[in-house]
Amino acid sequence: MTFQPCGLVAFLSDFGLADAYVGEVHGALLSGDPAVRVVDLCHDVPPGDIRRGAWLLRRTRDAFPPGTVFLAVVDPGVGTARRPVLAVAGGRAFVGPDNGLLSWAAAPDAAWRLLDCPSFARPAASLTFHGRDLFGPVAGALASGRLRPDDAGPGIPDPAVLSFPSWSVAPGGASGTVLHVDRFGNVLLSIPATALPPGLPRSAPLAVRAAGRTVPACLGTYADGPGLTVHGDSSGFVEVAWNGGRADRALDLRDGDPVEVCW
Amino acid sequence: MTFQPCGLVAFLSDFGLADAYVGEVHGALLSGDPAVRVVDLCHDVPPGDIRRGAWLLRRTRDAFPPGTVFLAVVDPGVGTARRPVLAVAGGRAFVGPDNGLLSWAAAPDAAWRLLDCPSFARPAASLTFHGRDLFGPVAGALASGRLRPDDAGPGIPDPAVLSFPSWSVAPGGASGTVLHVDRFGNVLLSIPATALPPGLPRSAPLAVRAAGRTVPACLGTYADGPGLTVHGDSSGFVEVAWNGGRADRALDLRDGDPVEVCW
Amino acid sequence: MTFQPCGLVAFLSDFGLADAYVGEVHGALLSGDPAVRVVDLCHDVPPGDIRRGAWLLRRTRDAFPPGTVFLAVVDPGVGTARRPVLAVAGGRAFVGPDNGLLSWAAAPDAAWRLLDCPSFARPAASLTFHGRDLFGPVAGALASGRLRPDDAGPGIPDPAVLSFPSWSVAPGGASGTVLHVDRFGNVLLSIPATALPPGLPRSAPLAVRAAGRTVPACLGTYADGPGLTVHGDSSGFVEVAWNGGRADRALDLRDGDPVEVCW
Repeated sequence: MTFQPCGLVAFLSDFGLADAYVGEVHGALLSGDPAVRVVDLCHDVPPGDIRRGAWLLRRTRDAFPPGTVFLAVVDPGVGTARRPVLAVAGGRAFVGPDNGLLSWAAAPDAAWRLLDCPSFARPAASLTFHGRDLFGPVAGALASGRLRPDDAGPGIPDPAVLSFPSWSVAPGGASGTVLHVDRFGNVLLSIPATALPPGLPRSAPLAVRAAGRTVPACLGTYADGPGLTVHGDSSGFVEVAWNGGRADRALDLRDGDPVEVCW
Repeated sequence: MTFQPCGLVAFLSDFGLADAYVGEVHGALLSGDPAVRVVDLCHDVPPGDIRRGAWLLRRTRDAFPPGTVFLAVVDPGVGTARRPVLAVAGGRAFVGPDNGLLSWAAAPDAAWRLLDCPSFARPAASLTFHGRDLFGPVAGALASGRLRPDDAGPGIPDPAVLSFPSWSVAPGGASGTVLHVDRFGNVLLSIPATALPPGLPRSAPLAVRAAGRTVPACLGTYADGPGLTVHGDSSGFVEVAWNGGRADRALDLRDGDPVEVCW
Repeated sequence: MTFQPCGLVAFLSDFGLADAYVGEVHGALLSGDPAVRVVDLCHDVPPGDIRRGAWLLRRTRDAFPPGTVFLAVVDPGVGTARRPVLAVAGGRAFVGPDNGLLSWAAAPDAAWRLLDCPSFARPAASLTFHGRDLFGPVAGALASGRLRPDDAGPGIPDPAVLSFPSWSVAPGGASGTVLHVDRFGNVLLSIPATALPPGLPRSAPLAVRAAGRTVPACLGTYADGPGLTVHGDSSGFVEVAWNGGRADRALDLRDGDPVEVCW
């Protein structure tokens, strides 16, 4: 495992901001490793929504420098036999529960380990708050270099993996499903941006087919409408937006719904 | 007062995140003490809800290292005669209004002082934003070591104290009230986890009595259901949860409601 | 342009906290300039609400030390011809889209430049996420001193400017409009606090006229009621509050509504 820590932890959870669990994890991490910097990625993952957490981790990963430790806690199985794990991939480390949460960000070449380093956990760890008592402190120790990935525990061959939503391309169009709807109502599809025909000029007419309806669109970014626009998004996937409005409402779309883009 | 600052401020308020008051306090604090680190505990305390703020401070306190300064601003009386105070307890310092907000976290052995150190307040302090103009800068000065607690002002014998919700234990069960409902719908009770019978095996049958109903439960963590589970929570109190759902809705419970746990 | 960076970036956006765009910008900024400190001002600006973002920037500006870089991204025109700009004013720097967002905070004496420094942008910048790919990295480079404002691009004479809401004073009262309603329901007006008669004693009787109704009030802060209070707020403008309640609901007021304060 090649991992050179840069002193940075990027932290994602479903803890929300109305309680103080996020602050408590920061405190526990800094108690052991006071010089580590912790950046909050997102804590408003809906409770237990592993898939959404997996996507947000995946899309933010490349904005962080090599040597970043990703601390991710969406963990409905806390306190059961689900394993705590570490993945190292692309020079970055990922710490969290073995429930698929880390699997998209760590793909495709991760080396996985069981976290078995009790001396880095909080003494008298609770059964219900592994973010504070295990994952946070271990992430801090990895980020500061006190713990090396090779010493975190034995390798495991069978981490839990979420299947990535499928997509396909054919002459005249591509099909996929809704990967994510953001606060602006932009609808991200599971279709890679590279599936769009390379020669299409900006403003080229397209169509989006969903829920039995076909809606005209054009190739372009948010302000290129009127109406529906389609473009390769900042995460490398195809996004559908509505100029001045919400594409999710215009098309009545939610996570996981099937969508076609036609050209 | 024994307090050795570690350069860390943990900040809680009811300022919310839709305005920029939180950022403004960070700016004022860093203006005086640029090397201090500020960790946000929670800013979504409902407006003026001193009791909820007091609980969140109390439960997060021990995750932070000795030498941390807790900056807490839930301050409906700002601009009136209510006093600004400092408490030092357990090697930690607590800065905020004298309205009970600090009293649970500072218990049981705090030394209290009136904040009377105008040279550390912002010049031309406002009447309505003591978080920015007084508490924040003082917290920064304490965290950086520019201000020693002994120099913050005269001791006071009569800080405002919130009464902690009562509880009792008897053969066959314990009674208390709801201390906190979190984003997951988990219901934390005012009953210490140590009140649960020590010999009870995991999955032991229990019952929870509330609002005139008795609901069967088992000893265990979130995923040990089906249905209601009871366990010693990560804060040291008894928590009631519902596997895959919300215990607060299943039992129709809110802050302050009476609950019994029977074994 | 006199600007000495202090290593601090204050970051405001309309990205919200339910996605991870905010974290992604932090990551991109820190990738280039790992020692810079980033303080979050507010990310819950309603999508595309340039005016609200402009106000929050303006009011928080003075809490931050000279040498701070303000990174502001409320950018419905991203991907179009709208220009990326830098303003330097009062020893502070402001980075963002040229849509008026920066204009209140940078007033009155800003020197404006077009951002034209591609070597500081992320390679392969997206069309839709300039916060991550351009503004964030440039803010980091300015804060660390790697990029000097004079080298950021050519001066421009015609930045986009939002008109500040008008106000007027006459014997017996002042008129203005609602500048901001905060989470507490406090209503901030476009009337400077200095417009209130200097000799008025605390608790002096006043009246607030809005939506055809006249409501009695008194000069004082939040807890000086009962009912409506009027005072010079921590941002230097006149604020209307309701003791123990929400002034916006009591008066049925929203951003931009006209209000008179009578004495």
